[in-house]
Amino acid sequence: MVLTALEFLGLVAFAASGALAAVRARLDVFGVIVVGLTTALGGGIIRDVLLGIHPPTTFSNWPYLAVCAATALIVFAFHPQVARLRRAVLLADALGLGVFATAGTTIALNAGATAYAACLIGMTSGIGGGALRDLLLREIPLVLRREIYAVAALAGAVLVAIGHALPLPSAAVTVVAAAVVVTIRLVALWRHWNAPVARPGDTDPL
Amino acid sequence: MVLTALEFLGLVAFAASGALAAVRARLDVFGVIVVGLTTALGGGIIRDVLLGIHPPTTFSNWPYLAVCAATALIVFAFHPQVARLRRAVLLADALGLGVFATAGTTIALNAGATAYAACLIGMTSGIGGGALRDLLLREIPLVLRREIYAVAALAGAVLVAIGHALPLPSAAVTVVAAAVVVTIRLVALWRHWNAPVARPGDTDPL
Amino acid sequence: MVLTALEFLGLVAFAASGALAAVRARLDVFGVIVVGLTTALGGGIIRDVLLGIHPPTTFSNWPYLAVCAATALIVFAFHPQVARLRRAVLLADALGLGVFATAGTTIALNAGATAYAACLIGMTSGIGGGALRDLLLREIPLVLRREIYAVAALAGAVLVAIGHALPLPSAAVTVVAAAVVVTIRLVALWRHWNAPVARPGDTDPL
Repeated sequence: MVLTALEFLGLVAFAASGALAAVRARLDVFGVIVVGLTTALGGGIIRDVLLGIHPPTTFSNWPYLAVCAATALIVFAFHPQVARLRRAVLLADALGLGVFATAGTTIALNAGATAYAACLIGMTSGIGGGALRDLLLREIPLVLRREIYAVAALAGAVLVAIGHALPLPSAAVTVVAAAVVVTIRLVALWRHWNAPVARPGDTDPL
Repeated sequence: MVLTALEFLGLVAFAASGALAAVRARLDVFGVIVVGLTTALGGGIIRDVLLGIHPPTTFSNWPYLAVCAATALIVFAFHPQVARLRRAVLLADALGLGVFATAGTTIALNAGATAYAACLIGMTSGIGGGALRDLLLREIPLVLRREIYAVAALAGAVLVAIGHALPLPSAAVTVVAAAVVVTIRLVALWRHWNAPVARPGDTDPL
Repeated sequence: MVLTALEFLGLVAFAASGALAAVRARLDVFGVIVVGLTTALGGGIIRDVLLGIHPPTTFSNWPYLAVCAATALIVFAFHPQVARLRRAVLLADALGLGVFATAGTTIALNAGATAYAACLIGMTSGIGGGALRDLLLREIPLVLRREIYAVAALAGAVLVAIGHALPLPSAAVTVVAAAVVVTIRLVALWRHWNAPVARPGDTDPL
């Protein structure tokens, strides 16, 4: 039940991040809903395809889609101003990343995956929705930008796998791990933690 | 048999839309074939992956691929002029959207999916090919642009599901539903039906 | 065993091509690793999803990921100069294309796929990683550009299928077919083999 509540929190957060990014890109109400749904449901669909769950959970539970569509509509209605949405997108994205990476790991472990596979599937599930959002809107995916992103998701997934192995209560571990991911990601954004970049040389001759 | 005929109609339409868009983007003959094949086969492959059909139907029936490749080649040969292709892309895309959304829903229902899952899989299968085409060619996906698109596909999928539940003859329902999708889409294009967009505020400070 | 050695060669080549392209796009060390991993592992994950192997092989063998991450890190460390990387990306990509197209076909045949399905899955598996790399970095996918690309992959896949049918020893056939793909691709690059492009007409009125 805690897992379900967490999942819905993640859905709302990712749907909001997708819808906000779409509003910012000046899409109409349908485009905003499509991007919101893709962002929120994409990671879970990828997770279920990798785990061999057919059809994906999303497609058997209408509340998933209803919650995401409602979130996107509310975002559209209450954010008529395109300005100042970048920070909101990043906040919602951090929340979705944390929840999906850790809940995805837990779901994979419950489906019988090894700890190694579960961590990778959880990380993919956390990263997937945001990557689809950025590809659709033709932005450079957040996961490729400067601040800690995939590493935060992986850290959460590993915490869940450790908790599962000890074993600690699954729900509590997932909540704590999600909080750790969100904290890492927000601190990275706030402090502009940067990783090294290659030094530029002479320009590439084509 | 009607379903098979419809599927081939959809393959030809989507292959043509992909090939036309690729010609318009100045790709060479191989690029035109790759985009044509991806557009035509992409939606069905996504559908089969979601339904857990391994390997996808496309990969067991060479006529599917042959028809799409031939279509792309014919488009390439008979459209040496890059100009005036935008309208042709949109027309072919509307036809493919209608056929794939409704045939996809029927296939999913026949594979035992619930009405809800079948509608979503059908819609995804209709939208998928065109979205892959636009991503490959780095255009903003049609599904995110102004005119009714995903909603038209969903309407067709829901009609098929209702017909299946009554029950009405599957083939007839699919044909009618596909015609409805194409009509909605073309009227939307013709009348420039627009949905509301968020009002611009002050510019976003980065 | 030869197949495993080939696979690792392909992983290293594709990881290097992805990492080099990411260094060229000025991503930081994490972005370089993400693009390297996606390029190297993407094709195999697509292959396993199409074959219905759950979870994908990559997710059950940590050495796959370790080798790719190490390759990306080494590329990052030893290519601090952004310049002159285009040629290196193309060389590594050709090697990865050849190995993945032919090893993918062999794996699909071993998994019981028909020759036709195996060729398509092999080709997709060869093309997939590079296409993901280019989509992530917002470049026009190599597979759509001028020189022979998908055709080279397909030729290798068909050679493997013929060898499998005769039957010739699988390992030897795969190695020879991979060498043929790489040779075709490099000669095409070197000689700038071009395929015909549609003649431009008057400009498209929107």
